[in-house]
Amino acid sequence: MRNIIFALNDDSPKYKQIYEQFKLLIERGDIQPDKQLPSIRQLAESLHVSRNTTLTAYDLLVAEGYVRGEGRRGYFVNEIDPISFTEALIAPNKKQTKPVTPVHIDFRAGAVDQAHFPLKIWRRISNQILTFQESFLYGDPFGELCLREQIAIYLLHSRGVKTDANAIIIGSSTQQMLIQLGHILKDDYSSVIVEDPGYDGAREAFHFHRLTLETLSVYETGADFSQLEQMKSQVIYVTPSHHSPIGVSMSIQQRQMLIQWANKRDGYIIEDDYDSEFRYTQQPFPALASIDSSRVIYLGNFSKSFLPGIRLSYMVLPQTLLSRYKQQFLHFESTSSLLSQLTMAKFIEEGEWNRHIKRMRLVYKRKMQHIVSALNEHFEQHISIIGEQSGLYVLVKVHLKYSEEELIERASLAGVKVYPTSLYFINNNTSEPMIKLGLSNLSNDEIGRGVELLKKAWL
Amino acid sequence: MRNIIFALNDDSPKYKQIYEQFKLLIERGDIQPDKQLPSIRQLAESLHVSRNTTLTAYDLLVAEGYVRGEGRRGYFVNEIDPISFTEALIAPNKKQTKPVTPVHIDFRAGAVDQAHFPLKIWRRISNQILTFQESFLYGDPFGELCLREQIAIYLLHSRGVKTDANAIIIGSSTQQMLIQLGHILKDDYSSVIVEDPGYDGAREAFHFHRLTLETLSVYETGADFSQLEQMKSQVIYVTPSHHSPIGVSMSIQQRQMLIQWANKRDGYIIEDDYDSEFRYTQQPFPALASIDSSRVIYLGNFSKSFLPGIRLSYMVLPQTLLSRYKQQFLHFESTSSLLSQLTMAKFIEEGEWNRHIKRMRLVYKRKMQHIVSALNEHFEQHISIIGEQSGLYVLVKVHLKYSEEELIERASLAGVKVYPTSLYFINNNTSEPMIKLGLSNLSNDEIGRGVELLKKAWL
Repeated sequence: MRNIIFALNDDSPKYKQIYEQFKLLIERGDIQPDKQLPSIRQLAESLHVSRNTTLTAYDLLVAEGYVRGEGRRGYFVNEIDPISFTEALIAPNKKQTKPVTPVHIDFRAGAVDQAHFPLKIWRRISNQILTFQESFLYGDPFGELCLREQIAIYLLHSRGVKTDANAIIIGSSTQQMLIQLGHILKDDYSSVIVEDPGYDGAREAFHFHRLTLETLSVYETGADFSQLEQMKSQVIYVTPSHHSPIGVSMSIQQRQMLIQWANKRDGYIIEDDYDSEFRYTQQPFPALASIDSSRVIYLGNFSKSFLPGIRLSYMVLPQTLLSRYKQQFLHFESTSSLLSQLTMAKFIEEGEWNRHIKRMRLVYKRKMQHIVSALNEHFEQHISIIGEQSGLYVLVKVHLKYSEEELIERASLAGVKVYPTSLYFINNNTSEPMIKLGLSNLSNDEIGRGVELLKKAWL
Repeated sequence: MRNIIFALNDDSPKYKQIYEQFKLLIERGDIQPDKQLPSIRQLAESLHVSRNTTLTAYDLLVAEGYVRGEGRRGYFVNEIDPISFTEALIAPNKKQTKPVTPVHIDFRAGAVDQAHFPLKIWRRISNQILTFQESFLYGDPFGELCLREQIAIYLLHSRGVKTDANAIIIGSSTQQMLIQLGHILKDDYSSVIVEDPGYDGAREAFHFHRLTLETLSVYETGADFSQLEQMKSQVIYVTPSHHSPIGVSMSIQQRQMLIQWANKRDGYIIEDDYDSEFRYTQQPFPALASIDSSRVIYLGNFSKSFLPGIRLSYMVLPQTLLSRYKQQFLHFESTSSLLSQLTMAKFIEEGEWNRHIKRMRLVYKRKMQHIVSALNEHFEQHISIIGEQSGLYVLVKVHLKYSEEELIERASLAGVKVYPTSLYFINNNTSEPMIKLGLSNLSNDEIGRGVELLKKAWL
């Protein structure tokens, strides 16, 4: 067994061919357990390859358990015993196994429309950005100034928020911003009020800092603000423009009440304005931060309105928190891609952002109208639709005998993927199950077929 | 003043022209304080623009304090009182004021070579990625599987680290990874040993969790491991392959000792392998994680070896920490760009990564040789060069009468930007100042000129 010769070709890396030949020999039993392999040097010489190549092949064989190294004595064949990480190394491109029923229609909410993405423009700008010298450096820890300036102008025009670039911090996600924010808030505050139901990701960020949570019940008619007086927290996290997930908006009276509350308590309102761009029935309400910027921490992101994968979010800090934040995080690197930031800044500056939002508002509005009429047509009195005035999903309260789990399971068997809402609820449970249907990356045809399949599955 | 007519052109947005005209009129005193401006509707009609346009212009004027809104009564001119955020809104493109002496040569370390960046290939792959359906979704919270698989293969071949995709977590920066890691470590450990001098960013991440720091002195000859026994921490953060910033490598004996120490203490070693790709004089030492993966948390990144701006880092967790980590962070979104991850995975898969590293090793090696010979030629016995065997910078210990601050200041007056090292030191101060010279994004010519200018400044 010491003089082994393989025929190596040029089709794939040599180390890989060596590795595969040995693997085959061992698997077929051509080389018996405990037999010694040629030394790294011997094999390299006989195959006319570098020692590095044979070493790599042996490393792979060792890593996968085919072979063991015994120090200076050399390499020996093991009894074949597939170990946990074999699969990852052998078949790096193998995809996950398919579900039994293939998914035909996926009402996923965490996606954006692909068909209307401004691919050419985005490519042009990002290709250009890659030629700039600043793209080869580390960025500003608080986000690139050019993007913060563009966001400041955008917030003024679209949300009435008067701020300046200096008070804006860019990060990679809302959760990331909440973790950094929580770090400076937890010195003064030990608990936070969250909406129930509400965005689970925000709760996770508060849990990260072991902040206690109090819950404010939210219904289809809005939040029950009468509960606020009994609570002891001074900080509240809310989604006033489009409640997540119920979709209701706070009235101007409620907004003013909330700001009074924060003033009285010497606290803060964390306003997550996560998808205010897509309101179909009327102008968006002004942001809380446009009413009182000293008590409101405003959070925005580009995930729903542009592309979740570029991981761009931002927060606007009141002056009282800003200097503490900057002092605390001055020595932290930014978490968001410098290239995405520079590209987005130019995209906004060129007016493409406003064009994109206008276009997408129309695209999503049509999809929303389509799903609502399809649902009404097929389900009539068996469901109630919630939150169709804005955003990229609707909730469907199902008046049938099935539980949430059963509804999802039955849909899945019919080839439709739909999503639960129970994870958003803490105590304020609903009597009937509510299903979340995202529509952003489905065509009107797909939406129609999906609703038909749901009818077969549920009725 | 109610019938105001401007000449609007097509060169810039109309709202901006209106805003600027009014600003000018107010600043020049052509419109007196407390005078009323035309209403939004009147102005829109007289200028043939939309009301939205005039509203935006007025919003800007209000935001900057030129004008106040008095509800239904309309808009009135204020006494001019420039407020803090005026500058940001007026001149969003204005750059920071230039220093008195322009910087001719910047020995910045936080940069990569732009001339040899594989621009075309990277563009081609990232443009292709933008057409994939998965690019329009949210990504895997622990990083994209395809990239984790490629990293697993790379780590095996280049660093001897045997791991699988499942144990790799992708994040946007080393600090970010340390913050997440710290979150699960702090339950069991209250302090960490850090190198002195050492990477300040890591210390910041440990401070984030209020972990106590003990310091291990590192000298040009290496770390003083005899101190370890007296310390009470069970976790240590180290840069074994290329100490940051001194550049020394741990010997294999030291590595084994450190692992024994971690085993005895039931602790962990956090191995930051931040730039192991660029070692010029010999093969890189094997990673600590290749010796004992159960006690070592391995950190790697693409900032030095590829591009800091894409914000891609990763960590390999021992099995004991992996499940806790995944449980804790399952509901957190990934902080790194999905697009960058998918692009990098394909870049590695196509073999471009290995080609890039090989090419850059040569490029940086030549720059390193160039700076070392230039420094020796011009400074002779007046300096000592430290850490020229690897990495993208050298340290220069200056045997002259100047302090670190003075050296930087004198260099600056000569048009050369050089960097301090004092920020890396905690207690273990050096007798003579050490200056950091990054060379990654300078040409050989620039390096030569820079060193000549330094000679004029310092000698």
